[in-house]
Amino acid sequence: MSPASRADCEALDAADALGRLRRQFRIPEGLIYLDGNSLGPVPESVSGALAQAVERDWGRGLVRSWNNADWIELPQRIGAAIARLIGAEADEVIVADSTSVNLFKVLSAALRMRPDRAVILSEPGNFPTDLYIAQGLIEQLGGRHTLRLVERDALGQAIGPDVAAVMLTQVDYRSGHRLDLEAISARARAAGAITIWDLAHSAGAFEVDLNAAGADFAVGCGYKYLNGGPGAPAFLFVARRHQQAFTQPLSGWMGHARPFAFETGYQPASGIGRYLCGTPPVLSMIALERGVDTVLAALGHGGMAALRAKSVALCELFIEQVERRCAAFGLTLASPRDASSRGSQVSFASADGDSGYAIIQALIARGVIGDFRAPDILRFGFAPLYVRHVDAWDAAEALAEIMRTEAWNRPEFLTRQAVT
Amino acid sequence: MSPASRADCEALDAADALGRLRRQFRIPEGLIYLDGNSLGPVPESVSGALAQAVERDWGRGLVRSWNNADWIELPQRIGAAIARLIGAEADEVIVADSTSVNLFKVLSAALRMRPDRAVILSEPGNFPTDLYIAQGLIEQLGGRHTLRLVERDALGQAIGPDVAAVMLTQVDYRSGHRLDLEAISARARAAGAITIWDLAHSAGAFEVDLNAAGADFAVGCGYKYLNGGPGAPAFLFVARRHQQAFTQPLSGWMGHARPFAFETGYQPASGIGRYLCGTPPVLSMIALERGVDTVLAALGHGGMAALRAKSVALCELFIEQVERRCAAFGLTLASPRDASSRGSQVSFASADGDSGYAIIQALIARGVIGDFRAPDILRFGFAPLYVRHVDAWDAAEALAEIMRTEAWNRPEFLTRQAVT
Repeated sequence: MSPASRADCEALDAADALGRLRRQFRIPEGLIYLDGNSLGPVPESVSGALAQAVERDWGRGLVRSWNNADWIELPQRIGAAIARLIGAEADEVIVADSTSVNLFKVLSAALRMRPDRAVILSEPGNFPTDLYIAQGLIEQLGGRHTLRLVERDALGQAIGPDVAAVMLTQVDYRSGHRLDLEAISARARAAGAITIWDLAHSAGAFEVDLNAAGADFAVGCGYKYLNGGPGAPAFLFVARRHQQAFTQPLSGWMGHARPFAFETGYQPASGIGRYLCGTPPVLSMIALERGVDTVLAALGHGGMAALRAKSVALCELFIEQVERRCAAFGLTLASPRDASSRGSQVSFASADGDSGYAIIQALIARGVIGDFRAPDILRFGFAPLYVRHVDAWDAAEALAEIMRTEAWNRPEFLTRQAVT
Repeated sequence: MSPASRADCEALDAADALGRLRRQFRIPEGLIYLDGNSLGPVPESVSGALAQAVERDWGRGLVRSWNNADWIELPQRIGAAIARLIGAEADEVIVADSTSVNLFKVLSAALRMRPDRAVILSEPGNFPTDLYIAQGLIEQLGGRHTLRLVERDALGQAIGPDVAAVMLTQVDYRSGHRLDLEAISARARAAGAITIWDLAHSAGAFEVDLNAAGADFAVGCGYKYLNGGPGAPAFLFVARRHQQAFTQPLSGWMGHARPFAFETGYQPASGIGRYLCGTPPVLSMIALERGVDTVLAALGHGGMAALRAKSVALCELFIEQVERRCAAFGLTLASPRDASSRGSQVSFASADGDSGYAIIQALIARGVIGDFRAPDILRFGFAPLYVRHVDAWDAAEALAEIMRTEAWNRPEFLTRQAVT
């Protein structure tokens, strides 16, 4: 049963075993933050970790800290921590570069694994950078491959014998629709296609079990539900069975079997390490590690299943309240109504893009942070590590008030900024 | 004339117009830091900049800081600052990813510009990651290209009509030998080959004038002489005349003409922006910006020419003192004797690799930080922004003492660490 009053929400929050995890973050007083699916908030521990990294390790340790502060191990160590959240073994995940660069690596490797097949299968709603990376790779490879985009419902039957790789983001960044990772992975495996999952909106938000699904490759983002900070380095997963067999083209020195032997010829490291390229951005890595820690903390409080249950409750509450209060104002649910087909966000479509953009700006001006995604999507992320039931309640109320009074219809809200 | 005593060195430091720039850094008391060619020291301003970025921008601004704190402009803004140090226009340089990833981008673009040529020309002493990236790219392109490695002296005549790209690091990471960027660029241009310069050991160390040389592409490192912090993001240069004509394969969303339109098809940004790929690691970028600022500060104190003159003086002093004191102990100069052929470092070869490694460890234990590069190179960087004449003097004395007493010949110094 969804709560029927704000007092009900307060009671739910008071009884929430995950509630104490919110204290891990520094969330501004009075702010309702529903944009953790774009950028997670600051973990309390980040300032101290960065100060130590700058003052002690970089400042006093200087170059020695590559050994003494274990900077050189950061990609593997944070990768192993993320592995616990996505159903992978510690040596199957590594942190490096950006999601886009990592996708280029694993997609390249996947195409090498299927030299007789020429199709990369995806859907038109996939996050654009994933599609752009595939386009760039195809051009680089001389145009022998095709990026085939089919609508979500037709994906299963589109995985035919010509498909080299099925490249999908599990959760749609606009609608929050969640694909059935297990079913699609099984279908791909049966058809001899390689799966590449983008977990940008999955990792840290709900249970993912890559190995149970038999997934081949995955990539994901450090700055959303992993709370790793703006532009945090990304991760990638390569199933152990594929690690030795193929290489990826971004063969930088950190992926060499012996980087400090300074050999002239590239020889890939024996495991997941070969997916590293250049020197990792240590300061951003250190912030990311603290972000990942905030999610690991949930493992002692019911784990990802408890997070997921709370996320579903928050999303249901928000949908119910918005639909009840805003039905007359042209907002329609753009997320699946069935929770099992949703990630950890709720999206509403607005009557048009300009008003949708302005509604989000008006909300932000009132301290409710969601975001807008072209052409007409109002997006609200419910990161269960720190979003409360009262937040969902209050956000729905603020949205209703803005719609009812047309408070969004002002020049300062209608003017677009560089980043939407 | 080189100083003949430590007192002479002190006098030189007292009279040094650049001396006050050392105060920009937090260098541990008593430490002689000659490894700024591996990792520059902490600028004083970094702690405050990071605290502001974490507490105000990430913490309170949250996702709004992409606009309000201009995070989205960091790649261009820092690129424009670096441009001032390397003879480029503000819109010809951008900060992104790592040196290795950036090299992959520009080398890919260069090969697209010369579809009828199949040779990438380099030298065997080039920094390994550059060679590895070329090898990875060649494999990806189906083996149609050849990486031809010729010794430095033969480079000029090797630039023939089959050469698509001349890919060189201006300063040799081991010996400190500096190539004639102007002459080689001119030779390449005459032969119709594209130049790609790796400025890892150049940018921030001495004058570089890419446009005067007619260079086509360049990449470089943020964490050496630019003092940007461990694993700082890297930069790349694309001459304006080439920016519109070709694309690079890492076509991520940040390089799109309209990233926040979320279009399905990739359309490259109109200028240098198309060399961006994924979301930049903001915290590491902010530290880098402060590092670059430390070098820009020299522009008001005689500029890069003054820095270069001081660097030469420091290197000459060190060479003279080490040769005078250590001639009997098997250390031989591995850097060019002619200052005009050197970067900002001095290298000595040791009798063998094991002793060389141990000598560096023994120096580090005495607070003189240099580094070792396989197989047998003792490497000392003289970053003129903060290294003093007394540092060069004292370092030579410490080295001589270690050689004379064989203080290096102890198990704790002979045991290799992960990062050398």
